[in-house]
Amino acid sequence: MTESDTGCLNLRWAAALLAGLTAGGVSSLVLSPGSRSTPLVIAAQRSTGLALIPILDERSAGFFALGAARAANRPVALLATSGSAPAHWYPAVVEASESGVPLVLLSADRPPTLRGFGANQTIDQTRLFGAFAREAHDPGLPRVDQAALAAIAALGRRAAAVAAGPRPGPVQINLPFEEPLVPAGDCTEAVPAGVTASAIPRGWAEDGAAGSSLTPIALPPGRGLVVVGPGRFGAELPAALRHAAHRLALPVLADPLSGLRFGPAADAVLCNYDALLRNADAARALRPDWVLRFGGAPVSKVLGQWLAGIPALLVDPAGGWRDPEHGVLRRLVAEPASVCAALSPGGAPDTAWATRWRQADQKVGALAETHLNAAPWCEAQVIRTLLAHLPAGEALLCANSLPIRQLDAWSGTRTEPLRLHGNRGASGIDGQLSTLAGLNHAARAGEGPPCWALLGDLSAVHDLSGWLLAEHLRRPVVVINNAGGRIFDYLPQHGLPDFARLWRTPVAPDFGRLAGTFGFVHRRISGADALAQALDAATAAETSSPARRPLLEVCIDAHASRSVHRGLWDAVAAMSL
Amino acid sequence: MTESDTGCLNLRWAAALLAGLTAGGVSSLVLSPGSRSTPLVIAAQRSTGLALIPILDERSAGFFALGAARAANRPVALLATSGSAPAHWYPAVVEASESGVPLVLLSADRPPTLRGFGANQTIDQTRLFGAFAREAHDPGLPRVDQAALAAIAALGRRAAAVAAGPRPGPVQINLPFEEPLVPAGDCTEAVPAGVTASAIPRGWAEDGAAGSSLTPIALPPGRGLVVVGPGRFGAELPAALRHAAHRLALPVLADPLSGLRFGPAADAVLCNYDALLRNADAARALRPDWVLRFGGAPVSKVLGQWLAGIPALLVDPAGGWRDPEHGVLRRLVAEPASVCAALSPGGAPDTAWATRWRQADQKVGALAETHLNAAPWCEAQVIRTLLAHLPAGEALLCANSLPIRQLDAWSGTRTEPLRLHGNRGASGIDGQLSTLAGLNHAARAGEGPPCWALLGDLSAVHDLSGWLLAEHLRRPVVVINNAGGRIFDYLPQHGLPDFARLWRTPVAPDFGRLAGTFGFVHRRISGADALAQALDAATAAETSSPARRPLLEVCIDAHASRSVHRGLWDAVAAMSL
Repeated sequence: MTESDTGCLNLRWAAALLAGLTAGGVSSLVLSPGSRSTPLVIAAQRSTGLALIPILDERSAGFFALGAARAANRPVALLATSGSAPAHWYPAVVEASESGVPLVLLSADRPPTLRGFGANQTIDQTRLFGAFAREAHDPGLPRVDQAALAAIAALGRRAAAVAAGPRPGPVQINLPFEEPLVPAGDCTEAVPAGVTASAIPRGWAEDGAAGSSLTPIALPPGRGLVVVGPGRFGAELPAALRHAAHRLALPVLADPLSGLRFGPAADAVLCNYDALLRNADAARALRPDWVLRFGGAPVSKVLGQWLAGIPALLVDPAGGWRDPEHGVLRRLVAEPASVCAALSPGGAPDTAWATRWRQADQKVGALAETHLNAAPWCEAQVIRTLLAHLPAGEALLCANSLPIRQLDAWSGTRTEPLRLHGNRGASGIDGQLSTLAGLNHAARAGEGPPCWALLGDLSAVHDLSGWLLAEHLRRPVVVINNAGGRIFDYLPQHGLPDFARLWRTPVAPDFGRLAGTFGFVHRRISGADALAQALDAATAAETSSPARRPLLEVCIDAHASRSVHRGLWDAVAAMSL
Repeated sequence: MTESDTGCLNLRWAAALLAGLTAGGVSSLVLSPGSRSTPLVIAAQRSTGLALIPILDERSAGFFALGAARAANRPVALLATSGSAPAHWYPAVVEASESGVPLVLLSADRPPTLRGFGANQTIDQTRLFGAFAREAHDPGLPRVDQAALAAIAALGRRAAAVAAGPRPGPVQINLPFEEPLVPAGDCTEAVPAGVTASAIPRGWAEDGAAGSSLTPIALPPGRGLVVVGPGRFGAELPAALRHAAHRLALPVLADPLSGLRFGPAADAVLCNYDALLRNADAARALRPDWVLRFGGAPVSKVLGQWLAGIPALLVDPAGGWRDPEHGVLRRLVAEPASVCAALSPGGAPDTAWATRWRQADQKVGALAETHLNAAPWCEAQVIRTLLAHLPAGEALLCANSLPIRQLDAWSGTRTEPLRLHGNRGASGIDGQLSTLAGLNHAARAGEGPPCWALLGDLSAVHDLSGWLLAEHLRRPVVVINNAGGRIFDYLPQHGLPDFARLWRTPVAPDFGRLAGTFGFVHRRISGADALAQALDAATAAETSSPARRPLLEVCIDAHASRSVHRGLWDAVAAMSL
């Protein structure tokens, strides 16, 4: 390189940054097309061990990276050109921040001397994501003295580490480049030794991620309850929690996104509380004196409201304080499995209390089973059929709004493992198909199992760009088509003037044509047997022709479905427990 | 209403805010479905004179509002529910801020006591748009004492006025509501008198929007040049500018987005400078001593670079300082038409200088004409055919990246008026179809003419949600399909390894299937005659069957097109001028 080859200077700076990122554990770069980002793209091409995934729409790219990072549990990098391009990441950045998913946001930029001067595709990208980035760096224009290259490589390592934890989330690095963006000469020099980070020694885990044994945690006297909300907990939790629950006679309520309902801990947790607590006698009799909470706020609104006013100890390894009912007295930043081992009883274990909870939960479960067997085709049967037929060890992404609530209410438990994913940080209906593509991309790289999806018709249409990512999918997509946002049917807005147009907002796409346009094989399904057959056939076909990408459109009469759901609630409310 | 009817309290607060907004000139509310936004939706339904436009995808809604406000030149309101929903507005907010389009962003929110506590769909929405909002307000939970209602109505009037100018742009009002969101009782009480703003007296224009005569502005001695960049100038500018140009013998270079190339000032402006200035002799001989600039930075990169180092006076009524070449010595915040009238000559008008510019420009124009007549089917001919056939008085939205540059280079001038729109604030390829829908929505309301579009294949696919807005369109969409981001063919990235996958990124959708899926009538076109016929047929059909919504896919061989373009540049460079 000559001193005057700005393109080579840009490339070496970019290469040093990427060396730091890869040393920090980043192995995927999701990039959207652009000119200003060129030095980073060339450096990424030359980098070893960095998979490049081009995605046109930056919003879709953002959710793709979110899915990939969620599955792999380590940072994924995003790259976009300057201007409004990185602003499209914002919804995915919000979700990543709220649900603690590690992302490194590389926003290419024009030189700082152009900011505020109306230059083409030039906006103020510093701190573009406000409070939703854990850190935002703006290291300025490239320099190639040894110290500068060491600094930008260190920033890469740091960004990856900060994104990874202890409070995982997005980190932005804004990277201005001067033209020319392409090296004039060969520019083959490697990043100088001493700049390329030596491999990070094993055992040098990310800050705070090291497990540690805790001093005993004394539980209060009286009746206790464990509530495990959404969270990405360690693999040791199921065994540790089952052991503690048995030892201390504690009932454990497990949110569907806790990772406990579907797998080896299934018999140790209760899952019918959303219906059960609609029985006033039960809600009173089963009220504990204190609650031990793990992770995020549960999906069930009934459970959340019932928890209000009950003193709680919140355990969150990421230091979150997710307590919308304001019952948390203290928060413990610690690994839940370690906490389970450290719990010390506040009195003699009250096995009658635990038994009462279990019996009530089982009674509701049995009633739901009977109720459903006599019901017409409805969302609950979609959930049951799906959970009965998804292969053991695979994953499912469940969309927000009504699908996750239906799943929460009707899933039951299963001992065959199933990894359930959901974007419950901001709980939007956005970005689902793109997230799914990212989850499956990670699976292809051996990080997590292949992933199915359960979407609503609105969430499927909200993320139309996600349909362009069909090639990344490895499992069928199930779309419940109930003609719009049917969660509003359960809310007081139902029946307001112009309700359908202003709240339910059916978009009524022709899913058959949509599927054909974007390379899916469409099948319209109505009925449990047809769904079961389609799921089994899809599972069998995956090994033979993985490029088929089925889209199973499950048509539902929303009114009938709501009647089934309400019927169960009424029956539970009338039960004697 | 009873004191305890929170739903009614919410509604009255929302109604007072909307009364203020409508008094301030807002007449359209673009809303995306949600629960927390319910009080504002009900209030909007009851408001008189507020059109409600529901759009599922908030990103698309944002660009739709941008288009509608751009056409109407007054603020349009956006409404979304809490969580990641308003974050989808970000790209449109960035564009609105950079290009000075008035928007009022109403983000519904959960109560502030839930912020940071992990509640469902609750994120910190305060100052969500950072530096891109002119103001961001967070007036807290609803109150219904007379003073509070007067305050929120005043905030509505203020938000509309601040968004409108003198520096138009987005204003955010974050609006938390407690449940219940729907009134329990009738809640029919109107907003109390004294709260509903009395109509704003005519003549009380927005701050700074009043025209005024200026003291004389002395021009420097020597040769001057006027450069009019993109801008939304007043209707008086063409006549005022033509008069000044003649009086002072000033050549006027008009960007395609200046509003001057197509209409009554067409014969007073020059438009072939992008090719002309590639001739080194001309670039030297035509260099002025000073420049008078209006509005934003021109599309032409060649012009911009040539302007570097020439002292400039920038006139921008919105107080922008758009000067990427850093040649501006002073900025004048004033109406361009008034400035034209106030210009006083620095010496005797140099008519030879103006004539030399005009002759050189005409010579290049004639050469381009000859060159094109002998050329194969190319983008330049698309531009020429389009401009020859678009009906007088209508509008055209031109996408960024290659389409606007082709239009800049090849448009020539026409005296039949044509209003050209382009999102040149951040110059992204995003949101084009949604912007187009908003422009046509405004046209339907009598604010601006119906609008055609010229898009590239990538910009058409980047905004897939925009395809769902077909019903709002009133004129055909022309998509140049040249298989990806062909602007990169003109940049040094061309030919890098894996160029197509990582820069050009053809998405290769089947536009016929896309069109069919979303309700367009698709026609594939190759050749000037076929395009001319299709445009004429579409124009004729608009009055008879406006629901047909043609999508004209114009297929282009990008390599041939680039050869034509380069051929002209070479010919101009070799000219003796």
